[in-house]
Amino acid sequence: MKAFGPIIEPISTWLNSGSSRRDAWIRRGLLITLMAMLLFATFWLVPARVLAADPTGADTLKDNPNMPVNMAWTLITGFLVWFMQLGFAFLGAGLIRSKNQTNYWTKSFMDFCIASLGFWAFGFALMFGGSKLFPGLDDGNSFVGFSGFFLSGSAYDVSTIMMWFFQMVFAATAATIVAGAVAERMKITGYLAYAFVIGALVYPIYGKWIWGGGWLSTLSIAGATGARDFAGSGVVHMVGGLAALIGAAMVGPRIGKFNKDGSPNNIKGHNLPFVVIGTFILFFGWFGFNPGSTLAATDLRISVIAVNTFLAGVAGAVVALYWTFVRTGKMDIIAGCNGCLVGLVAITAPCAFVPPWAAVLIGAIAVPFLVATATIVERVLKVDDAVGAVPVHFGGGLWGLLAVGIFADGTYLDVKGLITGEGGQLLLQLIDIGALVAWVGATMSVAFWVIKKTIGLRASREEELSGLDVPEHGIEAYPAQTPVLAGAAETDKA
Amino acid sequence: MKAFGPIIEPISTWLNSGSSRRDAWIRRGLLITLMAMLLFATFWLVPARVLAADPTGADTLKDNPNMPVNMAWTLITGFLVWFMQLGFAFLGAGLIRSKNQTNYWTKSFMDFCIASLGFWAFGFALMFGGSKLFPGLDDGNSFVGFSGFFLSGSAYDVSTIMMWFFQMVFAATAATIVAGAVAERMKITGYLAYAFVIGALVYPIYGKWIWGGGWLSTLSIAGATGARDFAGSGVVHMVGGLAALIGAAMVGPRIGKFNKDGSPNNIKGHNLPFVVIGTFILFFGWFGFNPGSTLAATDLRISVIAVNTFLAGVAGAVVALYWTFVRTGKMDIIAGCNGCLVGLVAITAPCAFVPPWAAVLIGAIAVPFLVATATIVERVLKVDDAVGAVPVHFGGGLWGLLAVGIFADGTYLDVKGLITGEGGQLLLQLIDIGALVAWVGATMSVAFWVIKKTIGLRASREEELSGLDVPEHGIEAYPAQTPVLAGAAETDKA
Amino acid sequence: MKAFGPIIEPISTWLNSGSSRRDAWIRRGLLITLMAMLLFATFWLVPARVLAADPTGADTLKDNPNMPVNMAWTLITGFLVWFMQLGFAFLGAGLIRSKNQTNYWTKSFMDFCIASLGFWAFGFALMFGGSKLFPGLDDGNSFVGFSGFFLSGSAYDVSTIMMWFFQMVFAATAATIVAGAVAERMKITGYLAYAFVIGALVYPIYGKWIWGGGWLSTLSIAGATGARDFAGSGVVHMVGGLAALIGAAMVGPRIGKFNKDGSPNNIKGHNLPFVVIGTFILFFGWFGFNPGSTLAATDLRISVIAVNTFLAGVAGAVVALYWTFVRTGKMDIIAGCNGCLVGLVAITAPCAFVPPWAAVLIGAIAVPFLVATATIVERVLKVDDAVGAVPVHFGGGLWGLLAVGIFADGTYLDVKGLITGEGGQLLLQLIDIGALVAWVGATMSVAFWVIKKTIGLRASREEELSGLDVPEHGIEAYPAQTPVLAGAAETDKA
Repeated sequence: MKAFGPIIEPISTWLNSGSSRRDAWIRRGLLITLMAMLLFATFWLVPARVLAADPTGADTLKDNPNMPVNMAWTLITGFLVWFMQLGFAFLGAGLIRSKNQTNYWTKSFMDFCIASLGFWAFGFALMFGGSKLFPGLDDGNSFVGFSGFFLSGSAYDVSTIMMWFFQMVFAATAATIVAGAVAERMKITGYLAYAFVIGALVYPIYGKWIWGGGWLSTLSIAGATGARDFAGSGVVHMVGGLAALIGAAMVGPRIGKFNKDGSPNNIKGHNLPFVVIGTFILFFGWFGFNPGSTLAATDLRISVIAVNTFLAGVAGAVVALYWTFVRTGKMDIIAGCNGCLVGLVAITAPCAFVPPWAAVLIGAIAVPFLVATATIVERVLKVDDAVGAVPVHFGGGLWGLLAVGIFADGTYLDVKGLITGEGGQLLLQLIDIGALVAWVGATMSVAFWVIKKTIGLRASREEELSGLDVPEHGIEAYPAQTPVLAGAAETDKA
Repeated sequence: MKAFGPIIEPISTWLNSGSSRRDAWIRRGLLITLMAMLLFATFWLVPARVLAADPTGADTLKDNPNMPVNMAWTLITGFLVWFMQLGFAFLGAGLIRSKNQTNYWTKSFMDFCIASLGFWAFGFALMFGGSKLFPGLDDGNSFVGFSGFFLSGSAYDVSTIMMWFFQMVFAATAATIVAGAVAERMKITGYLAYAFVIGALVYPIYGKWIWGGGWLSTLSIAGATGARDFAGSGVVHMVGGLAALIGAAMVGPRIGKFNKDGSPNNIKGHNLPFVVIGTFILFFGWFGFNPGSTLAATDLRISVIAVNTFLAGVAGAVVALYWTFVRTGKMDIIAGCNGCLVGLVAITAPCAFVPPWAAVLIGAIAVPFLVATATIVERVLKVDDAVGAVPVHFGGGLWGLLAVGIFADGTYLDVKGLITGEGGQLLLQLIDIGALVAWVGATMSVAFWVIKKTIGLRASREEELSGLDVPEHGIEAYPAQTPVLAGAAETDKA
Repeated sequence: MKAFGPIIEPISTWLNSGSSRRDAWIRRGLLITLMAMLLFATFWLVPARVLAADPTGADTLKDNPNMPVNMAWTLITGFLVWFMQLGFAFLGAGLIRSKNQTNYWTKSFMDFCIASLGFWAFGFALMFGGSKLFPGLDDGNSFVGFSGFFLSGSAYDVSTIMMWFFQMVFAATAATIVAGAVAERMKITGYLAYAFVIGALVYPIYGKWIWGGGWLSTLSIAGATGARDFAGSGVVHMVGGLAALIGAAMVGPRIGKFNKDGSPNNIKGHNLPFVVIGTFILFFGWFGFNPGSTLAATDLRISVIAVNTFLAGVAGAVVALYWTFVRTGKMDIIAGCNGCLVGLVAITAPCAFVPPWAAVLIGAIAVPFLVATATIVERVLKVDDAVGAVPVHFGGGLWGLLAVGIFADGTYLDVKGLITGEGGQLLLQLIDIGALVAWVGATMSVAFWVIKKTIGLRASREEELSGLDVPEHGIEAYPAQTPVLAGAAETDKA
């Protein structure tokens, strides 16, 4: 047991070594929260036999012989969605400087861990309790659910657990969108607290309204029922994009981003290949994100969704690349990547409802939304979004929700946009946008404010100037003594 | 609307600011083409209700209860094929110098975007119109199809659209093979024009002959019917490899590649890990490429195909690694990677027709084809193929087509090679090779010549010497002011 | 044929140019072995029609209409498992220095090639011959099988070949675990010989005992039958981790790792992003590793397995990150990544048998096992495990096997752990651990000793100090003349 010795001793040391009274209290609070969660999970949940009704899924299989292909489809596409985390990490890392790489990769990796634990503990129950989608998870109303905490209770069966997985990877995606916008100056401790809040509370409650059988999904206007967001232009991307905007605004701009007259400077990233790699991986993951959102391979619309997703992405990329070329004479691949991503974000809501030609248009038209949002964020709001997350996710998500109301052709789930001569769906989409902005705007503002006043949001000026890697993490991303750089030095001497 | 302001104004500026009359005309032509395509797609296609017959696939499902598993299989393997784009990007990027990274990543990302839009607009219709594979896409003959442009028309249903997706990712693969061969000196504008041509015209018309029910697929000789190229050793790899050879020849060698006496120099790449990463990703994608080409999981031959693919890849890698070790005493991983890839290219045509022991042999024997092709390209033809794309894809593809005629054991689709005592298939394969070389050789020569005389193929001497990144793209791949390098500098001073 | 000329001539040169008599004999032995294997595979196997009984799987499909979805599931998850090779490569590469990158990437790529050829030739037959899982592969007993060599024989059908693929990627995973532990000083030739031995002999024979119907799978104690290792905490991870420990011990520590007083130094890696990227990719692959091990999508327990896998991984990451933060005040992402991986290793055996709350606990408790094993390896045994492979794979795997006997809740395959009041399973798990340690400990010690005495294990002092890349491979990973570094140099001058 001696090997376990060093595990217990430092805890008390740590508890008593806060640099201030506030810090000491935060440490105590953190430890108590963690232990309470563990104890709760262990002792309260142990007696409840999870999966009691149909532990192996044999009954489910008997009732639904197509469940294997649908579950395989949903899980595999869910794996692809999860893999987008790596795409976000590459993309953002490429767009920021070397001195903050350790910090950025830590945030990118740990945010989904923490957001998903929040979603496990609270989020799923808030989002799907009482949704009538899952027998047994009955408690809840049109605004919030409250059954199914901690993936426990006899109501869970193999289908519910599959659904939990798919929903969780979406929550984790929303969470990680913020990392890039607040990069290079937000403290890691504050950022990880944010990740818990969005995964446990902010994302799921809005999600409840539209995907969990809540009020936005049942609202009727002018013959249309329910705002539609097939795979989450709003639920995932606008939520993440708006949280990013608020976070970036509250943490303030990086040192050197804005001049005294308010004009912005371009702070170059450190690794252009990373940007393209990230976009490739995100695109790959989107093939899970959109087609997987049928939750069933028996819904053969999946082929249309895959093709629409692809076409919107490439249309956005081509339009943004040539658009920039027209303006600057340079083939700016960062513009191409952002155009691709904004096209993908935009097609996410309408992907199932529109014909392929509309997907090309939606992707192409997403580019002006990208440009306009970027201009507003940087020049009007004077917010420093370090990687351009807000234009891609908020701007593109907004256009995506609108596009459902414009281009839906009525061939799927009877959703009809302006091109069929119906206007009701577009009104529903506008209400959805308003509700999203109000909820996320209010809650994320409060959340970031509370974090700012307790744990703190912003690294010190010294830390920011030196880069966050060594002060916060104790590890440089690319230690200088490596032969790459020794090689450089030798070259220099020679 | 002010935010959209900067979108309209620069277009006219750009139109009138060509550096020459020719340049101005190219700009006008480009803009008109783009707008014409958008208008055509929008106004002509809007009235046509896509998917009118069976929009959700419900009828397809009733007719074919196995469609879900087959569609899930085809889409997921298609996603893996698409992901090979990232493998090609890494592989080529690793083998070339830092100063051309932005250029190379731009080409790698944008080529599939543009090639696939070409395939969307024209390629699929040319390749599968009249193929009788898709009811409703009836116009076409043995040499070229002409129905199904722009994924529009009432004939499309969920199955056709699935097929479009799978075919499109193959076309995009053929297109990107060329990027490496012409790297470090071909202009980005010329390269992207090439990508459109191969995706819209060159690839699909040859593809029609063998995969679209065309003349090569119906030809009979000595009891055998139809040349066989299961997953595209010829259609994808030889087409891409030959286009690469022609492109590299027409753009000319990089400055410094060949000495005055014609002997070649080895221009080292900038990042060996990238080479191995690219190979890993390509190998991963090949598990989609070959097994997915059944287009059905109900064809249980998929397990044999996966195993054959794997064995040929590892056999090629091991033989090439030890082969180089025997010659040089060094374990050259670039040789190992190229050996792996040439083994994979070679097994692509025969993967479904041969037993596993033959897959090992095919992978091993691909290595001499690699070595021989590399020698011919560099020493006989004096062509500068910057990343060795021609030996891998053309050399390996050639051997793969031949291998069908040698090792097919008659257990699948009744394809019989020499080992069964039949020679007819081998003759068909030789005719296929001849047709491919003639078509691709002729059309790509014309295409690159036209691009050379209009847009231009080759960057200027100054651009090439400084690297293409700043002159063509305005962005260095690894901006020098980043702390990585500042760190190096500091180390140096210390 | 002239192009093939350089292929034959250097072989004789090489054969006669050994630097010593021993070296010359090794060269001869290598060549003869390779040629014997090729000849054996070709001439002995050609007459045997592989897949003679049911070559296309049509009969299999008739007997089992669910085979398509199960085969698609098994193959696709197998592809994900294979992709973990890239994760291991990134992870280890990030944790070691630049001067050994070419060497490390070569090992990472070639080890799976060689191990899988060993598994093809011998391993699968030793592991599954006589297991009664496959009709026709009848020869074998409780300790070792002997039918099915070289994937040949009429017994193979599409199902067996699918199984071969899935088993092969697991064998390849075990093999590559060792690369990191012995990095920066083990000779490439010796390492590749090891890879063959583990894939052909060591892994399959232990695997036989537990997965191939061998004695550990039939042993009964106190009402429980058969040790359980669902996806390989033991078979893959402890085997790989113990081989890593033995390899690292026998090759000795890196120069500079230990001070004269035996205290260890921390040798920093060269690229922190690589570490996180590797962890992301490994996590992604684990979604194949564990859920795929049902070998069937009709076993709907796959959703529970996916969720358990995920939860254990994130719980491990969060506990390790905050645990380190408590001790050091730094957010150490390397600790977070190792915590994630050890959680994933630990859940691998119990993933199918435990409820989600237990998965969280298993992941969390894996972290103390990680810390304890790391302490023992470095401080007690004084072994230099360059990337921490032993704590993650051996420590985590040990805990995973034990956790089956503790947390299995009896809902799946009737496996019951302590929480159901039964102790028999835990005893079986302990016996399994003992058997594994005895077998792998003995055989790998002999194997590494034999390699040491013949090919040699350790690079020379000069090679180690300069880095293995140029002496062993002739290629630097990041050639210094690239503009990145030229840029650095210029910055320095400016």
